[in-house]
Amino acid sequence: MPDHRPHVDGSRVLADLNALRDIGAYKTGVHKPTFSEPHMRSLQWLAQQLPAAGLIAGIDGIGNVLGSSPKSGPKLLAGSHLESQNYAGWLDGPLGVVYALEAARIINADPGINGSVEVAAWCDEEGHFGSFLGSRSYVGALTEADIDAARDRSSGRTMRDALREVGLAGRPRATAERGRHIGYLEAHIEQGQTLESGGLAIGIVTSIVGIWQYRITFTGEQNHAGTTRMDVRRDAGLALARFCVGIDDRFPASCGPRTVWTTGRIVLDPGAPSIIPGAAEMLFQMRDDDPGVIDRLETLLRDMAAEASAQGRCTVTVERLRTGSPALMNAAFQQAIEAASAACAGGRSIRMPSGAGHDAQVLATIMPAGMLFVPSIGGVSHHWTENTADADIVTGAEVFVDACRRLLAG
Amino acid sequence: MPDHRPHVDGSRVLADLNALRDIGAYKTGVHKPTFSEPHMRSLQWLAQQLPAAGLIAGIDGIGNVLGSSPKSGPKLLAGSHLESQNYAGWLDGPLGVVYALEAARIINADPGINGSVEVAAWCDEEGHFGSFLGSRSYVGALTEADIDAARDRSSGRTMRDALREVGLAGRPRATAERGRHIGYLEAHIEQGQTLESGGLAIGIVTSIVGIWQYRITFTGEQNHAGTTRMDVRRDAGLALARFCVGIDDRFPASCGPRTVWTTGRIVLDPGAPSIIPGAAEMLFQMRDDDPGVIDRLETLLRDMAAEASAQGRCTVTVERLRTGSPALMNAAFQQAIEAASAACAGGRSIRMPSGAGHDAQVLATIMPAGMLFVPSIGGVSHHWTENTADADIVTGAEVFVDACRRLLAG
Repeated sequence: MPDHRPHVDGSRVLADLNALRDIGAYKTGVHKPTFSEPHMRSLQWLAQQLPAAGLIAGIDGIGNVLGSSPKSGPKLLAGSHLESQNYAGWLDGPLGVVYALEAARIINADPGINGSVEVAAWCDEEGHFGSFLGSRSYVGALTEADIDAARDRSSGRTMRDALREVGLAGRPRATAERGRHIGYLEAHIEQGQTLESGGLAIGIVTSIVGIWQYRITFTGEQNHAGTTRMDVRRDAGLALARFCVGIDDRFPASCGPRTVWTTGRIVLDPGAPSIIPGAAEMLFQMRDDDPGVIDRLETLLRDMAAEASAQGRCTVTVERLRTGSPALMNAAFQQAIEAASAACAGGRSIRMPSGAGHDAQVLATIMPAGMLFVPSIGGVSHHWTENTADADIVTGAEVFVDACRRLLAG
Repeated sequence: MPDHRPHVDGSRVLADLNALRDIGAYKTGVHKPTFSEPHMRSLQWLAQQLPAAGLIAGIDGIGNVLGSSPKSGPKLLAGSHLESQNYAGWLDGPLGVVYALEAARIINADPGINGSVEVAAWCDEEGHFGSFLGSRSYVGALTEADIDAARDRSSGRTMRDALREVGLAGRPRATAERGRHIGYLEAHIEQGQTLESGGLAIGIVTSIVGIWQYRITFTGEQNHAGTTRMDVRRDAGLALARFCVGIDDRFPASCGPRTVWTTGRIVLDPGAPSIIPGAAEMLFQMRDDDPGVIDRLETLLRDMAAEASAQGRCTVTVERLRTGSPALMNAAFQQAIEAASAACAGGRSIRMPSGAGHDAQVLATIMPAGMLFVPSIGGVSHHWTENTADADIVTGAEVFVDACRRLLAG
């Protein structure tokens, strides 16, 4: 590559991120659920910045903000999201949008660069109403019936009502023009501790892991907590607790190097202090980028359920609710990020899978896609204390813009 | 004792129990929550039977039905309750009321017996609105403020509204006339398997166990279920599961012969499939008639919490919510039941504590009290399949009436 370093304005990047934090601020983070007033103001803020980056701004019928470039040459799509989890961090989403905006400002105005960066803010990546509704709409994987069915998980408000209230009902939804983009690049905070604990600046995402989800049900016998002797009980809650401990004891010998698993919800039935639970249920999730590892663990899970049932006290069933589809990031995009890290971050980068889901996994279904991570302080995520050092934010922007330039150069 | 065997009419006892089952029938059981239409009709049914047993019937301002005897001589109070748990069994309550009614019919009409049996149906023993409200009112342990605060646990309806709707608002509440009764006798289904598994007909209750209740709280760190490596997690739900298993493994070495313990409710916070629980809580209950045993187990519980906290992943705290007060049954009452079992049931009786709470524990605070149990098929309780063999019901009635006669004879 020729020595054509982009001129990232670090203070401008930080000022933009702080401007977005001021909209819907909560302590040092933000509270911007999808289609809330601060979320809509954040979309408007972005639409107002796009013309200065040489882009024509539009907001479509599902709340995606898209900036289109009239410049000739190859086009790279870049972005992330602007709504937040409830009472959560300021960088989760806005970081990738502001990096894309900065790249557009630098590259689209540079007559020495053949091509341009187009900016996107995908609506509802955080899943208040569904799963990646904005980016799925853009790739053509969201039907009108899907929108009819979508409801806010907290309030129960329908997505149709929400779209009407924010003035987007009836607008057309933008969909990808096939062949327009050489690919999609997204930056995000890591949301984990790999970069921080390794003293690294950049994570080069190799894949976005799939999520497999299970309902594990325990059936025993409901009975009186005072009159039923311990030796005749068939306590479904106790069977569940033993099963959780069994997973924790046995999974490490069979899992992959980065497999994670979580029991996020437990319900005992009937859930009364004086009644031995006759039934119990847990929601169990596994994530990996290798379906082969998950196959092995699912077999172990089913074996454990059969063993527990054979002991006779309670019956254990395992039901798969969701099958993961890991998304591979494009090899050329990984190479461009690695080269940019070498040029702008002293090579302090590592290739790593993403344990969290991102819009890039949806865009990857129709075009080459890549992602880069910046460090999260203490690995904190989905909490208002989430943060990244200013210096890491600026280094990330420099790597991002340089990677865009390299990708457009082909 | 002279050979003055009472003439229990077994078919009349079974017919009365079936008449009560027909009011609010649900499958082979009943659904009669406190102050429901079938509950009120059951109280009226009882009030209509009392005159034929030589009793003056009344229903008081909290829904207690009381039959007063004008006969001279010692008076024995006997009874149980007529409301049911939701969709529950036909004998839990009515058995003791019908036995008391049968005893009053036989004894109060017998000029050869000095004294009489008075019948009570205590309101809300099943705790829809509170804890033993009817019998507590009778012993003088329930204030007007307690009634003001009482609400139906299912519907939230206040007890005041319920009393008004069933026409009892403004009636005086009956309270025990000190010295009127030689004591209180109550029969009940066992709700466990001790009698059935031993081929026995009668349980002579020695004590009603106390209930100690605890909230055990686990505090870890809430984090992202995808991006947080297994080795840095502080999963409060997993800590809870390990604690439950620890109780199950370690309590048997320290408990008494009849101690029971139950985790009836578990809540993970925030309870979402993609979030590692940062906090978790369990409701834990222990029952025993020996507070010394509970002291030992509570010490073990607190030691286990300290050990778990010391391991550093999660902090565990144990908070006692309720302290048990075991109630001893009167020795002379136990002897009378034992003698009656020898005379009427071939001595197939056993002395045993009651693991469930009963109105007798409330009456025991102001007068001598005794209880007898009849077998429960399969130990089933608080379910519509609850049942007792007809022959066991009749034998129980014979023992009950004979015990009444022996107690009145002094």
